Amino acid sequence: MPRFFADKNNISDNNITIDGSDAQHIGRSLRMKIGEELILCCDKIDYKTKILSISDNEVCCEILEKSPIISEPNVSLTLYQAVPKLDKLELITQKAVELGVAKIIPVITSRCISRPDKKGFSKKKERLNKIALEAAKQSGRGIIPQVWDILDYKTAVKSLKEHDFSFVCYEKWGIPFSSVVNPLDFKDKSVGLFIGSEGGFSESEIALCEEMGIKTISMGKRILRCETAPISAISIIMALSGNI
Amino acid sequence: MPRFFADKNNISDNNITIDGSDAQHIGRSLRMKIGEELILCCDKIDYKTKILSISDNEVCCEILEKSPIISEPNVSLTLYQAVPKLDKLELITQKAVELGVAKIIPVITSRCISRPDKKGFSKKKERLNKIALEAAKQSGRGIIPQVWDILDYKTAVKSLKEHDFSFVCYEKWGIPFSSVVNPLDFKDKSVGLFIGSEGGFSESEIALCEEMGIKTISMGKRILRCETAPISAISIIMALSGNI
Repeated sequence: MPRFFADKNNISDNNITIDGSDAQHIGRSLRMKIGEELILCCDKIDYKTKILSISDNEVCCEILEKSPIISEPNVSLTLYQAVPKLDKLELITQKAVELGVAKIIPVITSRCISRPDKKGFSKKKERLNKIALEAAKQSGRGIIPQVWDILDYKTAVKSLKEHDFSFVCYEKWGIPFSSVVNPLDFKDKSVGLFIGSEGGFSESEIALCEEMGIKTISMGKRILRCETAPISAISIIMALSGNI
Repeated sequence: MPRFFADKNNISDNNITIDGSDAQHIGRSLRMKIGEELILCCDKIDYKTKILSISDNEVCCEILEKSPIISEPNVSLTLYQAVPKLDKLELITQKAVELGVAKIIPVITSRCISRPDKKGFSKKKERLNKIALEAAKQSGRGIIPQVWDILDYKTAVKSLKEHDFSFVCYEKWGIPFSSVVNPLDFKDKSVGLFIGSEGGFSESEIALCEEMGIKTISMGKRILRCETAPISAISIIMALSGNI
């Protein structure tokens, strides 16, 4: 059965309305008719619905059943990603959403080669959020993880520190994820994960993280590309927390 | 210090010869001179060497020091990958090598959309092995993992079964990696990992694996793309075996 994300504001007691490109997709591409059934998802709930009316701009559906979504991980993982080249950030966004992150926050660090300002990043953010939406649909997520505005390094570290667990991956030293936590520790907790760009982190950046109590993690003895490290680290956190 | 892989046949007691495109690269691109030092790697050993002579076709080096490479994982992991579209197989090859696989064996399964025969695959294999070589150089591997010829499903399953541990990842059922093995179990063992193509495996393919004693692994409740699954599974195996 086709599945779409619905906007919270378009959900009433009995009905859900779908507008925009999804409405067009339902009517024109899928050629769905009144009376056919759709799954509409919002905020970790799947609504089984029946189409009441279809136009090019709007599809109105009646709610038949509600069920909580079981595909969301029990850990809320935020990826703080030092900004790499755009194509790499696109790959990271797609894979991070598939693997279960809650949100992605791009960060400018001292060694970022690509250094867009907030304004310059707004179009890219739009594109990245489209990729996140598509990945959320494809992988059966219960939320649409958002790509946020760019943060500077210091603001990112302060925000990272606010999670129940906070990690920074570094190629020069660190301990493995598996030595940090017991799998059960992660349950229903928030985790912040900071990954460097192509040039990695400077020692003073890592020193600041460590001063703030953020754990430095080693990703092993092979040098991972900056787009491999987050995919690998998220996989490991999800496995250690019982979500893979 | 620049680092290149050397051919076993080009190593004598005191000298190592580099030929082909690497020789050109050393002379023309890096503009290295006689007396300068190079790291040459072969079969998990790094040789610190000094250049004795340079021509366009050949660089001859004197061995100064030998040291075993510590970047190789203590588990020998073979990826059996059902053939996806070529660009995905390229990404999988690059990431699998970075993350530490020993070799990659493409397999034709019932749901492969891309179904090259052995002959048709030979040019692709050449390209994939170039990608593997570059990834091995970049990530500091001690071996160059090879992409093998395509196997049919039944031959692949027989070969998979010969490993100390053999796993097949399946989206419909299975247990998590973490419930299968104690980290210490993996040490110095061989692991075979079978991952599906875009269409996944058929139930009868999984049944055959299970009959052969191959463990079915679940990669969690989100649906991973066929290129995400191997990257994620390899990361988890390397983390569980203490190699990340």
